[in-house]
Amino acid sequence: MSNRSKITYTFTDEAPALATYSLLPIVKAFAASADIDVETRDISLAGRILASFTDKLGDKAIEDDLAYLARLATAPDANIIKLPNISASVPQLKGAIAELQALGYAVPDFPEDPQTDEEKDTRARYAKVLGSAVNPVLREGNSDRRAPAAVKAYARKHPHSMGKWSMASRSHADYMRGGDFFSSEQSVTIPKAGEVRIEFIGKDGKVEVKKKLAMQEGEVLDSMFMSCQKLRAFFEKTLQDCKETGVMWSLHVKATMMKISHPIVFGHAVTVYYKDVFEKYGQLFDELGVNPNNGISSVYEKIKSLPASQQEEILHDIHEVYSHRPEMAMVDSVKGITNLHIPSDVIVDASMPAMIRNSGQMWGKDGKQKDTKAVMPESTYARIYQEMINFCKTNGAFDPTTMGSVPNVGLMAQKAEEYGSHDKTFEMEADGTMRVVDADGKVLMQHEVEAGDIWRACQTKDAPIRDWVKLAVTRARQSNTPAIFWLDPERAHDNELRKKVELYLKDHDLTGLDISIKGYNEAIRTSMERMIRGQDTISVTGNVLRDYLTDLFPIMELGTSAKMLSIVPLMAGGGMYETGAGGSAPKHVQQLVEENCLRWDSLGEFLALAVSFEEEGIKTGNAKAKILGKTLDEATGKLLDNNKSPARKVGEIDNRGSHFYLAMYWAQALAAQNEDAELKAHFAPLAKTLTEQEAAIVAELNGAQGKPVDIGGYYRSNPEKTSQVMRPSAIFNAAIDSLN
Amino acid sequence: MSNRSKITYTFTDEAPALATYSLLPIVKAFAASADIDVETRDISLAGRILASFTDKLGDKAIEDDLAYLARLATAPDANIIKLPNISASVPQLKGAIAELQALGYAVPDFPEDPQTDEEKDTRARYAKVLGSAVNPVLREGNSDRRAPAAVKAYARKHPHSMGKWSMASRSHADYMRGGDFFSSEQSVTIPKAGEVRIEFIGKDGKVEVKKKLAMQEGEVLDSMFMSCQKLRAFFEKTLQDCKETGVMWSLHVKATMMKISHPIVFGHAVTVYYKDVFEKYGQLFDELGVNPNNGISSVYEKIKSLPASQQEEILHDIHEVYSHRPEMAMVDSVKGITNLHIPSDVIVDASMPAMIRNSGQMWGKDGKQKDTKAVMPESTYARIYQEMINFCKTNGAFDPTTMGSVPNVGLMAQKAEEYGSHDKTFEMEADGTMRVVDADGKVLMQHEVEAGDIWRACQTKDAPIRDWVKLAVTRARQSNTPAIFWLDPERAHDNELRKKVELYLKDHDLTGLDISIKGYNEAIRTSMERMIRGQDTISVTGNVLRDYLTDLFPIMELGTSAKMLSIVPLMAGGGMYETGAGGSAPKHVQQLVEENCLRWDSLGEFLALAVSFEEEGIKTGNAKAKILGKTLDEATGKLLDNNKSPARKVGEIDNRGSHFYLAMYWAQALAAQNEDAELKAHFAPLAKTLTEQEAAIVAELNGAQGKPVDIGGYYRSNPEKTSQVMRPSAIFNAAIDSLN
Repeated sequence: MSNRSKITYTFTDEAPALATYSLLPIVKAFAASADIDVETRDISLAGRILASFTDKLGDKAIEDDLAYLARLATAPDANIIKLPNISASVPQLKGAIAELQALGYAVPDFPEDPQTDEEKDTRARYAKVLGSAVNPVLREGNSDRRAPAAVKAYARKHPHSMGKWSMASRSHADYMRGGDFFSSEQSVTIPKAGEVRIEFIGKDGKVEVKKKLAMQEGEVLDSMFMSCQKLRAFFEKTLQDCKETGVMWSLHVKATMMKISHPIVFGHAVTVYYKDVFEKYGQLFDELGVNPNNGISSVYEKIKSLPASQQEEILHDIHEVYSHRPEMAMVDSVKGITNLHIPSDVIVDASMPAMIRNSGQMWGKDGKQKDTKAVMPESTYARIYQEMINFCKTNGAFDPTTMGSVPNVGLMAQKAEEYGSHDKTFEMEADGTMRVVDADGKVLMQHEVEAGDIWRACQTKDAPIRDWVKLAVTRARQSNTPAIFWLDPERAHDNELRKKVELYLKDHDLTGLDISIKGYNEAIRTSMERMIRGQDTISVTGNVLRDYLTDLFPIMELGTSAKMLSIVPLMAGGGMYETGAGGSAPKHVQQLVEENCLRWDSLGEFLALAVSFEEEGIKTGNAKAKILGKTLDEATGKLLDNNKSPARKVGEIDNRGSHFYLAMYWAQALAAQNEDAELKAHFAPLAKTLTEQEAAIVAELNGAQGKPVDIGGYYRSNPEKTSQVMRPSAIFNAAIDSLN
Repeated sequence: MSNRSKITYTFTDEAPALATYSLLPIVKAFAASADIDVETRDISLAGRILASFTDKLGDKAIEDDLAYLARLATAPDANIIKLPNISASVPQLKGAIAELQALGYAVPDFPEDPQTDEEKDTRARYAKVLGSAVNPVLREGNSDRRAPAAVKAYARKHPHSMGKWSMASRSHADYMRGGDFFSSEQSVTIPKAGEVRIEFIGKDGKVEVKKKLAMQEGEVLDSMFMSCQKLRAFFEKTLQDCKETGVMWSLHVKATMMKISHPIVFGHAVTVYYKDVFEKYGQLFDELGVNPNNGISSVYEKIKSLPASQQEEILHDIHEVYSHRPEMAMVDSVKGITNLHIPSDVIVDASMPAMIRNSGQMWGKDGKQKDTKAVMPESTYARIYQEMINFCKTNGAFDPTTMGSVPNVGLMAQKAEEYGSHDKTFEMEADGTMRVVDADGKVLMQHEVEAGDIWRACQTKDAPIRDWVKLAVTRARQSNTPAIFWLDPERAHDNELRKKVELYLKDHDLTGLDISIKGYNEAIRTSMERMIRGQDTISVTGNVLRDYLTDLFPIMELGTSAKMLSIVPLMAGGGMYETGAGGSAPKHVQQLVEENCLRWDSLGEFLALAVSFEEEGIKTGNAKAKILGKTLDEATGKLLDNNKSPARKVGEIDNRGSHFYLAMYWAQALAAQNEDAELKAHFAPLAKTLTEQEAAIVAELNGAQGKPVDIGGYYRSNPEKTSQVMRPSAIFNAAIDSLN
């Protein structure tokens, strides 16, 4: 116990970053009692931009915290609390750049159309900041997510609202039948380590090497493409269908994570929906640098340089489009923000559960809920949403008071599958052949492609698969719950994985376990049939389904995915504890600035910290750490029971108030325990103070609410100003500070 | 070969009976060449009425052909061709009685409300004629149905029309969630032979024995009930839902076969839908003898005795109902015949496939197709239709040119399951307890019931189950096709059956066979997923699913269930060959009478006769019979290929023309074969004549069409008149007669 150990807490963006200003001082003070340091590492969007250009910042140069964390993740003593951060779209990136420039940081503009070497270098650096740039770097392990018992019990007692489903609902998920990645997927398992080349052969026979990959032995390599023509024809068909049936149209992609392919897909949706406008102004838009991949907002932005009359004409033509296209789902009907405005507004893993929870409906331009066609071009995973929609039509909305749970064990390590495909994704510039060739010149996979098609390769390394199988068996054993490997017999990739899963399962004692392998539709159907009967089923999935399902089921069960326990047992031996899978809640920031009330719920952080302390205790033999973890769990349970989570109304307990109650319950639990006298003695005074001062502290915390505040920035708020806003109770601050 | 053998051909009702007048002379003439007699046995509705009152008919007394056939079915040399016959509803029965009385038969009126002993005796005799009264008697074996290769090939080449499905369709199947037979089902396997009693215990503790049953060892006995209150509440809920969503309302039951329980269910639908009318006129309707179980038509019929002004008032009130109830599916929108008019118009096993084939729509009062709620109160089997509807919404209409097939092996023998429950079905007259008690006084099953609830017991004997398992294995082996036993883990009855199936499967060599057991939803889903990929899957089901599925899948695959090969390998060793599962086509009779054109397709008879000849040949060593069967199959294939089935337009080939072509091709095939010189010589002249006279004969046959004809009756047409109408070609008649 003489060595101090360390928990690394990430500083991120938006609401969770704001909450950190309030929570971290508490956590640091408590952790110190077990000789644990809590260090902070900045992986915010602004922080990552600065780190990418630190060579240009002079005396403002900073350390690259993400690089630090990447190294840490492969060290056996890593103990990282990872909060949600922004997966930046281009518009978000530009916003952050502008803010940093205003703060005096010499970061360059984002080059839309890089020409010089310097511009190209700048663009390349920004490319690494775009999209989901943090998780793939840190996730040096697979994923183990479940609803903690206290959270599940709370949801059963206090069920969130669930929109009723009508058997007559017209809503559905629509996807391509052919021409998409699913239908063209090929997959091979690499027999021995070596280099493979991704090549393009033009119609002239010229071979261009697009990429070289160093493959490991036993690694699974896939290739696939989406036909541009078929994608566009599909979009047109869905629009015609909505026009005929009167069902609202909506698009659901994941342009943030799938940062290369999905913006292109999104862009095609924009140019098909607004076909008349893009046909009429094609040349002008090119000259202006309109990029449909950034949404129709790109048109609004770029035409600002035109004379007013010309702007008006274009806007008129855009509005004309709405008269003959079907109604489109709105992101914000008051402000007129449609589904096609910017690519980062509607993200499939969040938008589809929201729609399903909301009676299968989205909001129309009149602000009313309507039955909706959810367009998800790629059929691989879209099918599971249609399966769930059909299930809800037949069986009604899920009932949080009785339903079972679907925890997830997800293959994630080392950028597995599609989520690691960005640097192997190409938008074809000409017709020809894409092929993957091994070192001996053997063609492993091959596709005939056309200009505009999106071709990609995906890698899945063997060690992560082996670890994933082990994690699934461990979870099935520890939870005493049936586990289903979701491996689709119609997918080439899944059939390669299936061979490995069947092989690696033999390494484990499966006695008494119920482990099966099913196709996606059958897997989700079985899980739902069990779920409505109150039974739990572990989903053991690939990387994309991991991401989708850990929103989908928690949002049905708990009303949010932020309350899930999300552990990444790192393959090197450390642990990463992720919190709040539901995004970083930009609307909460807006509310704080407007009325000094932060609705962010730090429950995910509480849960993650408890496991983090417990694991730290187990690994280092630090008994105090274990007690900190155990008492934190007790405090969290009490907080839920006593309904001290952030309330919805201004003037009631918000994020800061809930932190106070957590601290009070935690201190009380530590003062009440008898396992460690030192800790008991250390926390008794704090418990007493907080208990006695409860009313006064809450009055200070809640009294601060109701008026606008200045935090000095959005992407990089001013630390002093923000800390003052987030710690408004002098009594509480003094009590916490007294611990040190 | 010296012994003449015998094929028994049933004389039935409506279109198939009319067709028999044309086809049978041909068949008899051909059969004689192999020393086979073809005898006819009358199981028409009229024939069965007469047989039931033969003691009252004086010199018009007739033999009870159904009783004869029942004996024959348990004899090893039975060879029965069973054509479709009427499953009579009360209105149909009354129609037949009136016609027979007009023909001078002294059959009594149907007593609506029997009081005297004689009336009660009459009612009891008629009860045996009602509903599906023939099949349960004859089906002394299980069922083996499949699409013959020639028929399947024809459907792929000449696909029938299939209505497109929209993903936005609002249509669905709605069913009770609790309170139905499914939710209350209990089941036991009887360990040793003995008597069991069905008892009712009133609130006063008095025990009434409702029925005694002699049980065999190993017999499965079920009991279950449907709550009257919950059924009525369910109907009201479906009506409110349709009112809110604008989806059309329809009811799908099987009042013909389930002749005790389903008319009651139907009656509740009538009194709930027309609640205002039945509440207002309750007492009057009672006095008039209105029986809602016979449909709203019962009101129309009974009020005829009232003064015109009172009739008008009631009719006005009935029409008022339509103004606040949702739109109802129409049987005949021109004539204003609704779904609730009479219970025999909409029969679930025919109506649901028709709806699904028709884009999930039925016809509204304006004659337009509309999305529809298909109400099927009992959830046991309704779920499979909802599963198929969801499947079609997701995957589009089935494609007859590529889809696979779902043959059926059905448990049917000895009135298995619900289809034998009529004499064990009771509408509760008071609240109390229904229980089943064995000879030792042990209570085997028990339900608390309320007045109005429908309670029933079902029996399934062991020998039929054993035979069914054997038949499934044989079929899977002979067809080299995976077979799925549809046994639902949520049904008590199915769980009893499952034990036996697992046991009896051990009696067989299953090497290389793919035999599995699945719940209904999973079974139909798996079968459909395989089907759209062109794969066949044998459904091995209980009696009701046998009935439903052998319409459902054939109607999707072939456009009709009448083209299925339907064999009942009788347990005693004989064979019954059923034809045309699609009913007896009353509309075809109307067309014949109005314009002397009969659209009935005798393909089912052709297929059945071919197997019948072949089996007769195998069993008796009659080589000529085998050749007759083989050449008949060739003729049928040629008929399909050359498109000589009945056409749709008057003046083209109808039923009679198709019989001519069958005879010509059959004679040609016999003249062409070289296995049997005698047959070759015997048929050569006929082949020559028919070939040469083709144009003349077709001219005679088609020339007869286009004007009304008189056949002297509907339920019992005049044999001479009908024969003249059905054999209008003198040249053809002479040619056939010359064979003898």
